[in-house]
Amino acid sequence: MGIHVARFRMGGEVRWGWVRREQVIPIPGRYESLAEFLAEGAARARGMAAAGSVGEGLALAKLELLAPVTSPCNVVCQGQNYRSHMLEVGQDPDAKDFNQFFRKASSSLASSTEDIVKPERVRMLDYEIELGLVIGRRISGPVRVERGGLHEFVAGIVMGNDISARDLQLAEGQWHKAKSFRTFCPVGPYVYLLDAEDCARLMDLRLQLSVNGEPRQDASTSEMLYPPEETLTELSEVMDLFPGDLVLTGTPGGVAAGRNLSKLARQVGRFISVFLSDKTLAKLILKQGNTAGYLKEGDVLRASISSPDGVIHLGTQENRIVTRALEAPVREARAKVG
Amino acid sequence: MGIHVARFRMGGEVRWGWVRREQVIPIPGRYESLAEFLAEGAARARGMAAAGSVGEGLALAKLELLAPVTSPCNVVCQGQNYRSHMLEVGQDPDAKDFNQFFRKASSSLASSTEDIVKPERVRMLDYEIELGLVIGRRISGPVRVERGGLHEFVAGIVMGNDISARDLQLAEGQWHKAKSFRTFCPVGPYVYLLDAEDCARLMDLRLQLSVNGEPRQDASTSEMLYPPEETLTELSEVMDLFPGDLVLTGTPGGVAAGRNLSKLARQVGRFISVFLSDKTLAKLILKQGNTAGYLKEGDVLRASISSPDGVIHLGTQENRIVTRALEAPVREARAKVG
Repeated sequence: MGIHVARFRMGGEVRWGWVRREQVIPIPGRYESLAEFLAEGAARARGMAAAGSVGEGLALAKLELLAPVTSPCNVVCQGQNYRSHMLEVGQDPDAKDFNQFFRKASSSLASSTEDIVKPERVRMLDYEIELGLVIGRRISGPVRVERGGLHEFVAGIVMGNDISARDLQLAEGQWHKAKSFRTFCPVGPYVYLLDAEDCARLMDLRLQLSVNGEPRQDASTSEMLYPPEETLTELSEVMDLFPGDLVLTGTPGGVAAGRNLSKLARQVGRFISVFLSDKTLAKLILKQGNTAGYLKEGDVLRASISSPDGVIHLGTQENRIVTRALEAPVREARAKVG
Repeated sequence: MGIHVARFRMGGEVRWGWVRREQVIPIPGRYESLAEFLAEGAARARGMAAAGSVGEGLALAKLELLAPVTSPCNVVCQGQNYRSHMLEVGQDPDAKDFNQFFRKASSSLASSTEDIVKPERVRMLDYEIELGLVIGRRISGPVRVERGGLHEFVAGIVMGNDISARDLQLAEGQWHKAKSFRTFCPVGPYVYLLDAEDCARLMDLRLQLSVNGEPRQDASTSEMLYPPEETLTELSEVMDLFPGDLVLTGTPGGVAAGRNLSKLARQVGRFISVFLSDKTLAKLILKQGNTAGYLKEGDVLRASISSPDGVIHLGTQENRIVTRALEAPVREARAKVG
């Protein structure tokens, strides 16, 4: 059985700790990055857990928890990897025969309690709860990953929220900008360090997200079109991955964009994409300008991921949406650009 | 006036050198990455150039030059940033009101002479010569970049080739995978370290690329829709950039995809995109299956970027296309995935 770990601030210092019930047991050593923690601290934490030598614990509720995934790193994301999400945005999951990848900037990483800054120019701010895979070893060539051997490549799992500026995403076609603004990727609070026996559990995790207490997303990872072992096998053929990198595995249905498309979907039937091109659909949505359901200042996102047996619990995220105007000189530059 | 530098192997060691005519003058010190070189080595190189204290030079022709941009780093790319390229792929440059960004994996970086490996599954392999900006300082919030002050943010410029698997790019919509295979980003051979007086020159560089001696791309950076200062200003609003990161600024017309589209373009007029959605167009191209003009095993790409006055010369790239079958277990895994 794996263990839960967290990164937190204690005094002026950043530390890592083993999370045990309502306590955090500090792990000896200083680790500047997740990669450094995985190289040495993770084994120490496991040793502590195995020995049962708990020592003095800190009250979890009193600690300032930090993002357990640290920048810089690669954040690789799967697009449209859940049937329910594909259907709600008018795509046909049965027609999809490829694993779609895009990137978020690692500077978008934020903690599980940090405010999410809605840029002034963004009108359609959306959420996407996702299971994140923390890479545990350098992958520098093609490897074949099996479900039962996931722990050899995945050091742990973590909750992520792929915050998206839907209007930019639709208008610009490539998603990197729309999904990369700073604070657009809350992660944590915990990383669950994976053991061999946990691999099968990854396909039976429950993802839940609410906005201001209203349930929006509630699904099982069993719905994934491309499970982690197939994703990592293909990624290994394409690119290198490093310890501490993050792979976000896609979001299930229930995002704001899907809610706004539902009326359109009822009108033209299940497969909007057969009748309307992506570009036409995007234009319709942007022209309609319906921002109902999207995130606005003061909204509170609450999210959790856990296994039905309670063995894995990636903690709870609670992030508030704030707006912050650009500084004047930058705004001027943008006006010039636009 | 700036200076040209290169990264090369000497004995078993990786070194940096100041490129002066047909010689390379080794720069004292060891620098593991481009970021480390920029932090210390660049000033030393400038000092050597200012003092005229040349010392012993090595014959450039005899050295094994390495990629001067090192992985890991962020490779951020602009999409459709030249009028001629937009037109050849059926897009209307006058209708584009956004700066499009996507990412390449930094493990795609290759040297200016390295073989480019065409994956077995790729049928439409294409080239894209691009001017690359090497980031010189940490950008962690919005900044306003002016053309005359580019040297404050851009340490140097470098040639890049955004090799693209056009069939995957068209079929999958998001471009990260299609453009990230290992060896898909030859860079170098030289980085030109920028001085204040060079900033204006960036908009007057000539890009040339040939395939087996046949000219394919020949254009000026003056054609860019979004010049570097506007690009960096907007990127700074979105994400952090680090010293040693690479921003590729888009490619001009002449790519293989454009040649194959020309017949279609003549039939339906200038703005294919008005009549055909991106998805329909992609399907047409993929169905047509015309691979003429795309890169095949043994083809040799030759590329250069220089200023008309000859002050800036980013060297010459010469890369050969090779194929290499996937290892058996991986191929099996892919068959299972597909």
